Amino acid sequence: MRKPKIVILGAGYGGMMTALNLQKKLGVNEAEVTLVNKNDYHYESTWLHEVSAGTIHHDRARFKITNTINTNKTKFVQDTVTDIKLEEQRVILENGELEYDYLVVALGYESETFGIKGLKEHAFSIANINSARLIREHIDFVFATYNNEPEKRDELLTMVVGGAGFTGIEFVAELANRVPQLCKEYDIPREKVRVICVEAAPTALPGFDPELVEYAVTQLERKGVEFKIGTAIKECTEEGIIVAKDDQIEEIKAGTVVWAAGVRGSYLIEKAGIENMRARVKVDPQLRAPGLDNVFVVGDCSLVINPEIDRPYPPTAQVAMQQGPTCAHNISVLVRGQGELQEFKPDLKGTVCSLGHDDAIGMVFGKKLFGTSASFMKKVIDNRSLFMQGGAGLVMKKGKFNFF
Amino acid sequence: MRKPKIVILGAGYGGMMTALNLQKKLGVNEAEVTLVNKNDYHYESTWLHEVSAGTIHHDRARFKITNTINTNKTKFVQDTVTDIKLEEQRVILENGELEYDYLVVALGYESETFGIKGLKEHAFSIANINSARLIREHIDFVFATYNNEPEKRDELLTMVVGGAGFTGIEFVAELANRVPQLCKEYDIPREKVRVICVEAAPTALPGFDPELVEYAVTQLERKGVEFKIGTAIKECTEEGIIVAKDDQIEEIKAGTVVWAAGVRGSYLIEKAGIENMRARVKVDPQLRAPGLDNVFVVGDCSLVINPEIDRPYPPTAQVAMQQGPTCAHNISVLVRGQGELQEFKPDLKGTVCSLGHDDAIGMVFGKKLFGTSASFMKKVIDNRSLFMQGGAGLVMKKGKFNFF
Repeated sequence: MRKPKIVILGAGYGGMMTALNLQKKLGVNEAEVTLVNKNDYHYESTWLHEVSAGTIHHDRARFKITNTINTNKTKFVQDTVTDIKLEEQRVILENGELEYDYLVVALGYESETFGIKGLKEHAFSIANINSARLIREHIDFVFATYNNEPEKRDELLTMVVGGAGFTGIEFVAELANRVPQLCKEYDIPREKVRVICVEAAPTALPGFDPELVEYAVTQLERKGVEFKIGTAIKECTEEGIIVAKDDQIEEIKAGTVVWAAGVRGSYLIEKAGIENMRARVKVDPQLRAPGLDNVFVVGDCSLVINPEIDRPYPPTAQVAMQQGPTCAHNISVLVRGQGELQEFKPDLKGTVCSLGHDDAIGMVFGKKLFGTSASFMKKVIDNRSLFMQGGAGLVMKKGKFNFF
Repeated sequence: MRKPKIVILGAGYGGMMTALNLQKKLGVNEAEVTLVNKNDYHYESTWLHEVSAGTIHHDRARFKITNTINTNKTKFVQDTVTDIKLEEQRVILENGELEYDYLVVALGYESETFGIKGLKEHAFSIANINSARLIREHIDFVFATYNNEPEKRDELLTMVVGGAGFTGIEFVAELANRVPQLCKEYDIPREKVRVICVEAAPTALPGFDPELVEYAVTQLERKGVEFKIGTAIKECTEEGIIVAKDDQIEEIKAGTVVWAAGVRGSYLIEKAGIENMRARVKVDPQLRAPGLDNVFVVGDCSLVINPEIDRPYPPTAQVAMQQGPTCAHNISVLVRGQGELQEFKPDLKGTVCSLGHDDAIGMVFGKKLFGTSASFMKKVIDNRSLFMQGGAGLVMKKGKFNFF
């Protein structure tokens, strides 16, 4: 009897949790499971703001995939997906191809620049380990350049972050902590450095509790972050950005521009011709793509509607990790032809936004948290993610224990 | 009675040793001594190849000037010299000016590009802490860039060093040790990286014992360094360099080009109108500039002829450090109007060229040294320089003790 082939694309939170749960649910004789990923490592994408700012090393934020999956049960293929042929049930890789009976698309997010001119060419984005490491090194490089120029250009030391959403705020907070270290490393007076956060919406952290937002903004301003709220980025150039507030146009020269204001799903979703919105697939309650009974979509490529507000849940690690067990359960039901398909219902415990390693804000189990207690909770969440994927050993190796 | 004013320009090896020896020879009531330096720190310029390659941190290679001079006896002014007015006996600084009765010009070296097209614009030079740190960060940045480009450009990872003289060899040796670390840090296969050393002369390390040269070249080739000897750099472009060997022209694309093949004295020597050759002053036996009885020149701005071969001594830290006591003695004789002027006679103990932290070659007291013993001796020399300037305390803080 031919074993059904299950192929999981991507080893982010969604893909990893699906693979790990399939290992528990299906025996080696019931199906052949293959996990495909571009790199041989998984990275904690919710830690990339720290890698980008240089406040943690990128090796802390990643681990080898074959160290946590059971390679007797799940075959790991390191390769890059270039296309998905739905009709032929095949996945095209850079160095080969794979047939599938069941497909899990967990290809994560890409940066969404909303067509703003010059962003793709001149702004960095916090997208993966490579791009985060590049931001870190770029910042070091401009700081190192400063004292080598005959006419000192202070704008080299200006860092603009586009977006005061979750990622934007977490990133500027890390930057604010990093700046004094950078100044010491490169013999630069602190007052020469500017960190500017630009947000088009009328508030930072839209959707967050206003009291928490005020706390965050005040804390960051105290550390020298400048906010430009209600201000849209019109263009990014080699020299910096052009912004508009009401009718006022302003140019801000900057050596570093990081775009942290928009994400979309993978371009492969669009290329495959799956029905989507900004490369995200509005999945059915069982996490399947519309009209495709054997194609599951999890993580940031999936779009799950919150019925209470009739709007999609934001793409978070929390949702992605919870989709894993549901997706694995449903695939095992289909493979065995028995049992009942589950509907995915996220069980959101809350959200914590870090403000550097020693401060945070959050809503957890419906309670507002500030400062130390929120920061503690953030580290619990970060460690929990490691625990879910690699157990206590991984937490011991990469976890965050500087609780106070 | 008006105290004579002694002004020392530059706190490199020559300036520091002059200042420290003047402190011993003259009482506070005999003269007013001012030491002027651009930075508040002295750096060990013979360690800059390590800083540039990133094998030691720049803070190891520098120390605060006011930590080693006696500020009750020597006034320290942090400022940049912009001109020397010989007739008026005045030094113009960026933020002021100083009168002098005796002047010590110890302004160090600058990179000499011999008019080779594009070198100034596109090549780095190992000139000071700022430029060394910039090389280090540039290399990190190109390595970080590599994995972010859709089409990988291996030439980004090619590093060209112009010159296989003392500095060129010491620098490629550090690079050779650094490359495996860089590959690990940025997830790059070792075989993608090239380190190329280009030398126009018919041998590496011209003037060195041929047996030692062969040892050095073999050891470095074993670590993956490619040598192009008898090959001249014709031009440096944004993409790399163009070289010529005999009639063959070749383009080498490279992400990093470091020029380490020529030095000259300070441009301020030329600007002041002191007789010079490539901004170096052929001093009289008492270390004075021709025709200027109160202007001493020490260190890399001075040119001392070796009568045995009728050619100048190469500009080294060893010569600069030995000039300090002679210069200080002569100034104190002039200030007091008694005693006899000394002639400067370098007492060269030998030369050691490091090949990374664990290998070296050298001629010391007329004996050839290889490998561990030479490497040991190099560290003794490096520590001795710290000892001469800051005593045992400075050696303990910044010294090199990884002897084996």
